[in-house]
Amino acid sequence: MNRTYIKDLKNKIGTEVSISGWVDVRRDHGKLIFIDLRDMSGKVQTVILPNHKEAHESASKLRSEWVVTMKGKVNERPAKMVNKDEENGSVEFEVFEIEVLTEAQELPFELSADVNVDTYLNNLPLTLRTERRTAVFKVQAIITKTFREFFNSQGFTEFQAPKLIGDDAEGGANSFNIEYFKHTAHLAQSPQLYKQIMVGVFERVFAIGNVYRAEKHSTTRHLNEYTSIDIEMGFIKDHHDIMNIENDFMIYLCEKLNQECKKEFDLLGAKIPTVPKEIPKMTLREAQKMITASTGKDCTNEPDLEPEHERWLCDYAEKTFSSEYIFITNFPTAKRPFYTYRDEKDPTYTKGFDLLFRGVEITTGAQRIHKHDDLVASMLEKKLDPEKFSYYLQAFKYGLPPHGGFGLGLERLTAKLLGIENVKEATLFPRDINRIDNLLSK
Amino acid sequence: MNRTYIKDLKNKIGTEVSISGWVDVRRDHGKLIFIDLRDMSGKVQTVILPNHKEAHESASKLRSEWVVTMKGKVNERPAKMVNKDEENGSVEFEVFEIEVLTEAQELPFELSADVNVDTYLNNLPLTLRTERRTAVFKVQAIITKTFREFFNSQGFTEFQAPKLIGDDAEGGANSFNIEYFKHTAHLAQSPQLYKQIMVGVFERVFAIGNVYRAEKHSTTRHLNEYTSIDIEMGFIKDHHDIMNIENDFMIYLCEKLNQECKKEFDLLGAKIPTVPKEIPKMTLREAQKMITASTGKDCTNEPDLEPEHERWLCDYAEKTFSSEYIFITNFPTAKRPFYTYRDEKDPTYTKGFDLLFRGVEITTGAQRIHKHDDLVASMLEKKLDPEKFSYYLQAFKYGLPPHGGFGLGLERLTAKLLGIENVKEATLFPRDINRIDNLLSK
Repeated sequence: MNRTYIKDLKNKIGTEVSISGWVDVRRDHGKLIFIDLRDMSGKVQTVILPNHKEAHESASKLRSEWVVTMKGKVNERPAKMVNKDEENGSVEFEVFEIEVLTEAQELPFELSADVNVDTYLNNLPLTLRTERRTAVFKVQAIITKTFREFFNSQGFTEFQAPKLIGDDAEGGANSFNIEYFKHTAHLAQSPQLYKQIMVGVFERVFAIGNVYRAEKHSTTRHLNEYTSIDIEMGFIKDHHDIMNIENDFMIYLCEKLNQECKKEFDLLGAKIPTVPKEIPKMTLREAQKMITASTGKDCTNEPDLEPEHERWLCDYAEKTFSSEYIFITNFPTAKRPFYTYRDEKDPTYTKGFDLLFRGVEITTGAQRIHKHDDLVASMLEKKLDPEKFSYYLQAFKYGLPPHGGFGLGLERLTAKLLGIENVKEATLFPRDINRIDNLLSK
Repeated sequence: MNRTYIKDLKNKIGTEVSISGWVDVRRDHGKLIFIDLRDMSGKVQTVILPNHKEAHESASKLRSEWVVTMKGKVNERPAKMVNKDEENGSVEFEVFEIEVLTEAQELPFELSADVNVDTYLNNLPLTLRTERRTAVFKVQAIITKTFREFFNSQGFTEFQAPKLIGDDAEGGANSFNIEYFKHTAHLAQSPQLYKQIMVGVFERVFAIGNVYRAEKHSTTRHLNEYTSIDIEMGFIKDHHDIMNIENDFMIYLCEKLNQECKKEFDLLGAKIPTVPKEIPKMTLREAQKMITASTGKDCTNEPDLEPEHERWLCDYAEKTFSSEYIFITNFPTAKRPFYTYRDEKDPTYTKGFDLLFRGVEITTGAQRIHKHDDLVASMLEKKLDPEKFSYYLQAFKYGLPPHGGFGLGLERLTAKLLGIENVKEATLFPRDINRIDNLLSK
């Protein structure tokens, strides 16, 4: 008998089928045994009556997380037993036969228990199995799928960016070292240089992959390995083209989330944002003036936004424009990477931007310098050795159009969308200074 | 004036438009200057007449790879000038205005020249720009897109597998070491252990990402960093379920390649394979008996297939079944990883398989051991310390269904499909013992 998925049971009332899954909960009433069975598609209440002797005996031994196949019949529940809040609340599965596929050991805690973050992380192969945790990573999978769908539809080509990097690794101190035969290699902090090279090949490219930051602190915002969602596109007028396409992507993403993830957002008590047709934009200096005027603390000379400023600006955008998103542009050249394009009107500022959402920066993007000599001059100004970047510089020697792009941290975006405070809980297997799966021994 | 893509010019005859791209070739006939302009969508011949003085002066300075915007008119070519072999062979673009966006330095060699592999790799930011090289990576992007499409349609969920691994790295000698704060971490050789953990969460999962092998040789078959395409699925009967879904995927992939990549295959002189509804299957021992009978050299006790055996079997499958694919199953337990399921009839053999295609193995797959105690016993037999795998083992303690999966090297598959001999030429930025972008200094 072929397997029926649990979500399809409500369309099979009165028929005999076979279902497979994990024992979620068992309630033993002596004569009647109730088992909630869970598979990838949903959950159903099954009942084992004493007249099915073998099944009843088998059911009395079952415990949480045992894996079983059950044959039986789909019955309609009597009207007073119907639970409208459950997906399969109108049916009950009457079990005739049970086959145990795999036994499970006793659980260290109830799966439904509210455990602290460390217990959650120490036991991921188990704790990821709850409906709430699964929902987070279903949404994450829809984000990557939607990202690719959108950018494919805009003529972008996906490419596989390398993560093993040579001496041209950006920002030395923050990069992990690898023993690479008799050399030292590094783990990529972003696909930036390769994205730009690929503009010369495909004009419009995207990449999704792991990137690495050797940051020595463990906070609720930082990860040492995360997933970067990246685009780069050629023949732009300026950074507004990049912000505009990101704006369109955010609109498309939220439409898709409404179509495909309503259940998961409801379960997690999260709200799918409404994205304005034009996300408000403001320069850093304009933003700082407003913050200073409002708080009385002068921040107009600071080179970047403090976390409290990001929160202030998000509140402001919400109140003033009913927008949960706001672009902040024109960060100072001194604080942005060497490849960032400078504003012609005032080259001490860049055509770079951040996208803030629900209190934090979720994207960094910019127009990039596309002329070889300007790029070399910018490297020298930042005390970088152009010789180390000779490979990358070839792309510029041989003609790159005006271009730009952005990078988005997948886990942070997932967390902010779903109202998860600790980004580690929006990362399947988070690595930090203290942990690679298990806590690292001191 | 908005930009028109070059591929759309043939639908714009008689109208004035603006195009942008790279100078591919310039032919200066004094009065008439011809420039082939290339953008992401195609190529077109443009002509600059002397009556457009400024454009003509500008055109006389243009060289290969300069990036320009041209305004002008799309003309139909006179009948005798039509080139049916070219995409835009029926049109010519008459240039009125040229704007130089970026100048390029003189090229080190003609882009159309047939360079050797080292020159190709030393100059990737330039050499990737040819039509032939671009075609390879367009096909590669379609492979990943199609893979996700197919497995999404089969109820699989994508997940992001970590690449930073602790002490449970498979195969110690072949793994790269990372200085991870005060510890040593490793680069993942596959997402295997995480795929299996995720079967407990989603039942059916896939992942695409970089994996690493610290192999000390540089051959046309090996890469130190490559892209692994991976699936894992629960509730299977045995390894045939895995082979069958891979068979279906291959059929779907080749249909898509026919729809979307005909041009690229033609350009590269490659043939899109026809995938049989049932790819032939054979056990290793059966295969070895046939090879021995045919070649006279006894290989019936060897634990694995030699490269010449893989070629022999592919020839055989082609001749006997008109199939470019063949599954070889039941490899010896001694040669397969600890998590491989053993054949009940003879536990010295596994329910593992290879898929051979055009002379080489492109996939390794298997049913996996799903019972905790069997898995621990298998580790001990392979002299592995179960303590090191305690994290992974949690998935088994708490119930995993019978499951299995496969892994596919994206670059090798691309190479075999397109008839590329050296896998490095099917890898955008290949890393080997001697090279990370530039050759590593000795």
